[in-house]
This record gives sequence, structure tokens and C-alpha cells, in this order.
Amino acid sequence: MDQQYMQQALNLAKLGWGKTRPNPLVGAVITKNGEVIAEGYHHYYGGDHAEVDALKKINFSAEGATMYVNLEPCSHYGKTPPCVEAIIKSKIKKVVVALEDPNPKVAGNGIKILKNHGIEVVVGILQEEAIKLNEIFIKYILTQQPFCILKTAMTLDGKIASHQGDSKWITSEDAREHVHHIRDRVAGIMVGISTVLKDNPQLNTRIANREVSHPIRIIVDSTLRIPIDTNVIKTSSDYPTIVATTEKASKAKIHQLQDLGVEVLVVGQEEGKVNLKDLMVKLGEKKVDSILLEGGGTLNYAALESDIVDKVLCFIAPKIIGGKNAITSVEGEGKHLIKDAFTVENLSIHKFRKDILIEGYVRKG
Amino acid sequence: MDQQYMQQALNLAKLGWGKTRPNPLVGAVITKNGEVIAEGYHHYYGGDHAEVDALKKINFSAEGATMYVNLEPCSHYGKTPPCVEAIIKSKIKKVVVALEDPNPKVAGNGIKILKNHGIEVVVGILQEEAIKLNEIFIKYILTQQPFCILKTAMTLDGKIASHQGDSKWITSEDAREHVHHIRDRVAGIMVGISTVLKDNPQLNTRIANREVSHPIRIIVDSTLRIPIDTNVIKTSSDYPTIVATTEKASKAKIHQLQDLGVEVLVVGQEEGKVNLKDLMVKLGEKKVDSILLEGGGTLNYAALESDIVDKVLCFIAPKIIGGKNAITSVEGEGKHLIKDAFTVENLSIHKFRKDILIEGYVRKG
Repeated sequence: MDQQYMQQALNLAKLGWGKTRPNPLVGAVITKNGEVIAEGYHHYYGGDHAEVDALKKINFSAEGATMYVNLEPCSHYGKTPPCVEAIIKSKIKKVVVALEDPNPKVAGNGIKILKNHGIEVVVGILQEEAIKLNEIFIKYILTQQPFCILKTAMTLDGKIASHQGDSKWITSEDAREHVHHIRDRVAGIMVGISTVLKDNPQLNTRIANREVSHPIRIIVDSTLRIPIDTNVIKTSSDYPTIVATTEKASKAKIHQLQDLGVEVLVVGQEEGKVNLKDLMVKLGEKKVDSILLEGGGTLNYAALESDIVDKVLCFIAPKIIGGKNAITSVEGEGKHLIKDAFTVENLSIHKFRKDILIEGYVRKG
Repeated sequence: MDQQYMQQALNLAKLGWGKTRPNPLVGAVITKNGEVIAEGYHHYYGGDHAEVDALKKINFSAEGATMYVNLEPCSHYGKTPPCVEAIIKSKIKKVVVALEDPNPKVAGNGIKILKNHGIEVVVGILQEEAIKLNEIFIKYILTQQPFCILKTAMTLDGKIASHQGDSKWITSEDAREHVHHIRDRVAGIMVGISTVLKDNPQLNTRIANREVSHPIRIIVDSTLRIPIDTNVIKTSSDYPTIVATTEKASKAKIHQLQDLGVEVLVVGQEEGKVNLKDLMVKLGEKKVDSILLEGGGTLNYAALESDIVDKVLCFIAPKIIGGKNAITSVEGEGKHLIKDAFTVENLSIHKFRKDILIEGYVRKG
């Protein structure tokens, strides 16, 4: 039963997707005598925490009840009073937690306080699921740098575009729609200048029949080649836009872009290109907790080489296009030997109507 | 229950893998009063058909029993007397068939004879599974040309080798072992001369602790560039070897290879290269009912363009190697537009310990 209620808490947590940033996704379920008496979740940044949201829904006493919550209740005053205080006051008897607070500065403190007040605490139920759900929050709280998701879409023979550059469309509609749902959940979306020059994308979120959030568009452009009449720049008053460049960029072009509402970030160089590690630090300072990296091949390889990629989403379309000179998802120089390849772990596979999505995590170190 | 017994028949049929060629894989289950009273399968080419193999195992009368068999019982004298005769004699009451004989010349005749003798016949139980099991037989009986399986193994970024040509190993041991199980089941294994020159493969079947069958090695080599000291030629007295070439090959080299036990097939040209359609006809005449095509990229693209590929096995390893100049599984010129790509249908996904296998069928016409 513990697992079932925790799963329910995890499902509730997901209702806050994209709106709690930089807070974690948290859901809470309260049971008494084998029945669920309240549910709650963290709706949005600044709103009630899940525990309090659930407790507020109880019409009668919570005395003797059990709370299931996917993250350790907080013990510090932040935007709201600490949850442990509310839990203790409610006379809840037992708290089941999926995951300790990953922040090493506070980890275990909430649990300790609860225990000191005679509340039974169980930790670790559905922990893996809880880690995956809050992978963005965990990376950001531990490193102050964004969780970076590399997304590619290729054919069964590994092409992301034909030798003529045609790429519309590799994947089918449902897979492309899924990408917009991911965009809806991340703080930033990053591409290289080559992709802007080739595809002139809008890089916004488009989901039919519902409100969406638009990630910050981040363009990596070492020498500020970006034309001001591209879609990204033309819409920079509608959606936040950052162009990351280096000292090599002309001051005049920087000012021109700034006048158009674009934020220009001048970061360090790495072999004449934007130093991506440095960029991640700077984006982290701007509270960008997550980035969807959508290529092309040169930037993708540089990102992997810079060790900034955490997760990989690889869409595979059941098509074969061929072509010695066709384009692939990760280019650059490439590794010399297979044994030195980047390793992707903890794979999961999703099937769309036609396409397949392989998800995994880049092995670190 | 019909499905369960038919599944049992299909499982029995699989015991004949690689040994019944060019006959189909057939299994039979006989039930009476809700119990299985006999099982049989076609063990090897020339041996008893599954129906007879099962009937022979009945110690008492089959009168009133039901037979489940994945292919329509034969009605003609071949290597053995027709199965319908044995079934009628056994006084079996009902025959459940997964699939009509695909050969249009005989299709339905066995069923008709059974019905004429008062036996109830049900057709179509687990038909899709039955088609898949005998996909090689079906293609060959209908076209007299081999069923061609294109096998590739790539990284998550679509590479089959690094830019330096390193390809050892993309996939892990269990996936590579699976390929040897497929080699064990096909009549031929085909590569281009470039693969021979680059990898110097043995192209035999290696499975630990059991007897295996070795497919005919087929090397596509338009101008007979193959060196006589390559592994394939050096082992041509151990394993059957065909080199397919064109009129451009030197007569002296042809004789030299023939003296070494290699069969040289001179086939028509297609833009100066071996005409693969023509080669398939000639291989079909030699009773090669199935081919595993193991690349490289130039031959793979030519095979797809020639419309000889039926099935695709695409192994994907959770690695990223990168490289603009790394090698991909299907090269050649390539299609200009995504909309003209080859389509792969009826996908199935298998997970190995680390790698993923995507299987599907190339859409025809």
C-alpha cells in the first residue's frame, strides 16, 4: 500500500510540471484508517508546499493519520513557513518519504525534527521514481547549473537530415508534439547559430488548446553572426532570448541586439568558441535550472565534450534515408575509438505511434 | 484455448530453425478431451512433416482428436506422402490451421480435401505470428528469390564506426551473439568488398557449445578486387563462398578464385556495379532462400535502392561517438528528401542487456 500511495503522491507532484521552478515537484497524500482523506501538491513557485496544500483540505482532524510525500518536508522558512511545523501541529502520526532533500546543507533535517516530535518516518519508498521526477531540481540545487537534456531525432540509419539538408520531418506529429511538452517544462532551449541560419526556427512552445510556458531561447553564436531578421530575433520582445557569444563579437552588433530586447551574454572562450561550461555557470546564476539542447551536430558534440549534458532523448523514426554526406546528430571531430565513446545509461524506451524514443543519462566522469 | 495450442505449435516449429530449408517451419499439437496427446514438428528437410511426426507419437487412437498446425497440411507427394492422407486415416475430427499455404498453386487444396472428408477446419488462429515465423519460406516460395535481412549496428548518434574506422565493438556481447544465432538460421550472408578489405571478417557462425550451420558467404565485388589472402578466401574450402562480380572482372582472377574453391558468379551490371536484383535471381536459383546483409554503407544503400531488402534489424548501442566524418550504416548518395525515405513498418523492439534491437519490414512499392 505504501508504494501505491507514494505513486499517487508522485502523480500529484507532476501536476506542477514547469510551474514550480526552481522549487521541486512535490505531491502529498494523507490517509487514515486505510482511506485517502486528502491530496495536495505544490502548484507553483511561491504557493503552498504540497504538505500544507494537503493538510488544508482536511475538514476534520488529521490526528493519527499518515502522510505520503515524495520529498522530505522542509524545515526552514522560505517563501512559506516550514512544512514540518504544519505536520507536527496536525498531529499526523507517520510520514512516508520517497527521497531525502538532496541539498546536503539541509538533508535529513526535516526528518530529524519530525522524529524528535515522536512522528514515525519511513524513507525510501519509490526513491528511484522520486529522483527521476526531480532530476532537474536535484542537479540545480547541487551544482547551481542547469540540467541539460540533449534531444535528437534521427532515422533508422542515423540521419537527422538528408545530404541536401532536408529534415522536415524526420519524426511524426505525436513525437514532435512530445517535444513541445518538454519545452513547456524546461527553463531554456538552446541551439547553435548554424541551426538558426539553416532552419530559422521560432523555438517557442506550441501545444494545441492549452496555455504553455515558453523557455528562454539561448543561441550559441561565438562571433555574433545571427541576422537580425531571423525569427528568433524578430520575436525577442515576445519571448526571452539570450545570445551567448565571446569577446570576438562586435560591440556594435551587441548593442544592436540589446536594443531589440535580446540579452547578450559574453562568456569565456574554449578554442575560439563559446565556453559551454562557463555558459552553464552564467545561466545557472540567472536561475535557468534546465535546458533542452536541440543541436545541431557541432554544438551537440561540443556540449558532450564539455561534459554539460545530463540526459539524452533520442527519437528514432522508422525511415532510412541513406547518404554518405547526410547529416547526423552529433558531429564535430568525434571520438577516435569506440571504447572512448560517451556512455548512456539507465535507458528507457517509449513507443509513439510510429517513432521510438530512447531516453538515458550520460555517464559522468 | 485455440490460441494457446497454436502458440505451442509455433514454439515447436521453431525447433527446426535453420534445418528445414527450403521447407517451412511447422509444428503440430494434437489434443483430445482437453489434453495434449501428442506434439511434433518438422525436424529437418526430408524428414517427417510436423503432422506426421505428431501422429506417430500417439499410442492409442486419434479418433475424435483436434490437430493444431501452423501451416496448412500438404496435399501433394513431395519428399514424403501428403499429410492430409495421414490426418484422414487417423480419424482426427478437427484441424486448426494458422495460415493457408502461401503458394498460390496449392493454397487451400489441403484444407479442401480435409473438409471433403468431413473434417472440421478452422483457419487463421495466430495468423500474423505464423506469417512472421515463415517469412523466409513465404518470400522464397512466392518469388524464388531470397528473403533479405539488412542488419546494422549503430550508436545512439547513428555511427557504425568512428571517423578513423574503429568499430570494435559498437554493441555488447549478447547482441553480437544474437547475430550469430541469425547467421545460424539463414542460407547466406552478404557483404561488400569494402567490408572485406576493411575488416577482413570470417563471416562464419560462432555459437559457444553447440553445433551451428554456416551460411554461404556472398561477397559483392564488381571488379574482383578481393585479395586471395583474406580470411574469407583462405577459408573457402571450409565454408561455401560465392563472389559476385561483373564482366569487368579479369578472367585470370576468376580462375584463380575458382581454383581455391570459390564460386564466382558473373552477373549483370547496374551503373557499373553488380546488379543486385540479378544476383538475387541467381542466388534463388541456387536455393538460397535467405540472406543476412551485413553492409557496409555503400552496399546497404544499393540494396535498398534495388528493392531487395525485406527486413531490417537495427541494433542500437547506448553510446555516442560523434564525428562529422564518422561512418553510418547506409551511405551512397542518399535520398534528397525525407519524404522519399524508405519506410520501415511493423516495428518490434527487443532489449538486450545494454543494447536495443529495432526490427521492421521495408515497405514495398
